[in-house]
Amino acid sequence: MTKITIVGAGLMGSATAYPLADNGHDVRLVGTHLDGEIIRECKGRRYHPRLKRLLPAGVIPYYIEELEQALEGAEIIVSGVNSHGVHWIGKTLAPYLKPGQMIIAVTKGLELNEQGVLTILPDVLRSELPEAIRQQVALAAIGGPCIAGELAGKRHSLVVFGSRDAQAVERLAATFRTSYYHIWTTTHLEALEYCAALKNAYTMGVGLAAGILENAGGKDSAEAGMHNLAAGLFGAATTEIDRLLQIAGLDRSFACGLPGAGDMYVTCVGGRTIRLGTLLGKGHSYREAREIMAGETLEGAQIVTVMSQALPRLVQQGMLGADELPFMRALIAIVVHGKAVHLPLEEFFGGAGRL
Amino acid sequence: MTKITIVGAGLMGSATAYPLADNGHDVRLVGTHLDGEIIRECKGRRYHPRLKRLLPAGVIPYYIEELEQALEGAEIIVSGVNSHGVHWIGKTLAPYLKPGQMIIAVTKGLELNEQGVLTILPDVLRSELPEAIRQQVALAAIGGPCIAGELAGKRHSLVVFGSRDAQAVERLAATFRTSYYHIWTTTHLEALEYCAALKNAYTMGVGLAAGILENAGGKDSAEAGMHNLAAGLFGAATTEIDRLLQIAGLDRSFACGLPGAGDMYVTCVGGRTIRLGTLLGKGHSYREAREIMAGETLEGAQIVTVMSQALPRLVQQGMLGADELPFMRALIAIVVHGKAVHLPLEEFFGGAGRL
Repeated sequence: MTKITIVGAGLMGSATAYPLADNGHDVRLVGTHLDGEIIRECKGRRYHPRLKRLLPAGVIPYYIEELEQALEGAEIIVSGVNSHGVHWIGKTLAPYLKPGQMIIAVTKGLELNEQGVLTILPDVLRSELPEAIRQQVALAAIGGPCIAGELAGKRHSLVVFGSRDAQAVERLAATFRTSYYHIWTTTHLEALEYCAALKNAYTMGVGLAAGILENAGGKDSAEAGMHNLAAGLFGAATTEIDRLLQIAGLDRSFACGLPGAGDMYVTCVGGRTIRLGTLLGKGHSYREAREIMAGETLEGAQIVTVMSQALPRLVQQGMLGADELPFMRALIAIVVHGKAVHLPLEEFFGGAGRL
Repeated sequence: MTKITIVGAGLMGSATAYPLADNGHDVRLVGTHLDGEIIRECKGRRYHPRLKRLLPAGVIPYYIEELEQALEGAEIIVSGVNSHGVHWIGKTLAPYLKPGQMIIAVTKGLELNEQGVLTILPDVLRSELPEAIRQQVALAAIGGPCIAGELAGKRHSLVVFGSRDAQAVERLAATFRTSYYHIWTTTHLEALEYCAALKNAYTMGVGLAAGILENAGGKDSAEAGMHNLAAGLFGAATTEIDRLLQIAGLDRSFACGLPGAGDMYVTCVGGRTIRLGTLLGKGHSYREAREIMAGETLEGAQIVTVMSQALPRLVQQGMLGADELPFMRALIAIVVHGKAVHLPLEEFFGGAGRL
């Protein structure tokens, strides 16, 4: 039995409690200052209002004010915050961390560091830790396709745990793995995190097709939709993720496996990322779409914004051609520069019509 | 203006008439002996009953008995038959072919040749031609995601034309390309055709998830479906396609671009291939599913059958490990050996839980 503390009681962090409880671990679920209402319901009728399920027996809910108590003796900490909370959770955990602990994050995103270099979120979190402990804890992350509600419902989910620490990641996988939570491990943490972040940006792009269809009056009299366009954009997305992995010197096989194509596929099934793309495709400016979706975390748009700063630097360094990644550039024009949707399809796949 | 004869008036062959007509070409549409009713309607009220659209102005419909006349002066022949018709169309065209003609096929599939080697359909077609003309005509094929009804509806479609003849494929692309029919070219014809065939087998596999969900009583009280499983299977599919391309010494980038992931995506949106998988996932034996879908071409199952013969040979030659491609092996057990659905998820992605 392992003591595990989940910090952040949102959908995905909380969902990890289900396989962990099934494995008989001692699981504590700590809400952030934004999760007060969730924890109140978890403490009261043991019901998680966002997952719409009872909490597994044995999982103990804590308010953020009870963090120190909740972390008592924890071997593993799950970071359940979203990309906006990464700095916060690093700072918040810092005083309590002990050598040998492992932190595994469900957060998907990328940031630019002070030198303008793309940085994966486990490294952002690590940068918030005091020097003394920074190399004493293992950092890991979860990638691959996983809708939280399905994991909590014990549906088969195929995911990837990544950490640069090969021993830690195996230990983590062994702790979380169940008959329905299928876990592969990798030490290619950066490739995993690039995919996890980029698929949100590109899924927003795939969503454009549904909006463009609405704008064109919907299906025509012979029931033709715009799945061909969506699928073309899907293929362009995985191709550009592949190229970005290559530029970063990372494992390209991730683009067409669970972390890339697999995760894109599940994200395209529905949810806020594809909805944002559809609003943009319909002709709403990013600013309008942002207002319509007020209160929702738009991670796809955040990644596009980060990439708008990263790409010029890559071009300047000679690592990327100025006309490469036309799909990402189209997304940047829409999200960052507030332009109308324009997809330069002829420039996709290397342009010039030749694969 | 180029003279083009489409042979086979099914959905995809007929759909190519729309961009061709838009480009002002002289287009003739010949029904096979199975398409008599379609041609009658095309000749009468100029309506294509399967596409549910009027035929473009200028496209001339012909019965199969009028083939010779329809082929008069044709520079390009479109083979619009399905995988069962490839031998037939080779034999049928043989007497009329002239040096310098180009044949481009919409057909997706793979066969085993007499030596048990996987053979792409353009090569099957070529094998039916007389020696004298065999090397005098260029053979090409169309891959990538394209629902026929959307192409006919002039929706944006991103596809790949492939031929070993670099000049011919450029000429073909220039003839077909319009503002909505976006064409990339490749001389990696085999890689393109492998993807086109394999995606049908694997899409059937992705469809299993929806059937397994139905069997489990559908969504649970918290609305959890089985998209995680479907997405995991999608990622396994593109990964196994990638591996099969590698084994065949082909261009692996196709697995995650338009021909692989892109085409899989559009095939997963709906249609007979995903429906067959869902029936199997629900617990129907392949034999039962076959009866339920009587009269429909089940290309996914045909490819699985071909692969059941190809894999042992690849293992014997030392090109493939005996435990590789567990997803394809699971599909073979279901389709060829009539077994109940069993997905050995732990063996996926190289097994042992390590990517």
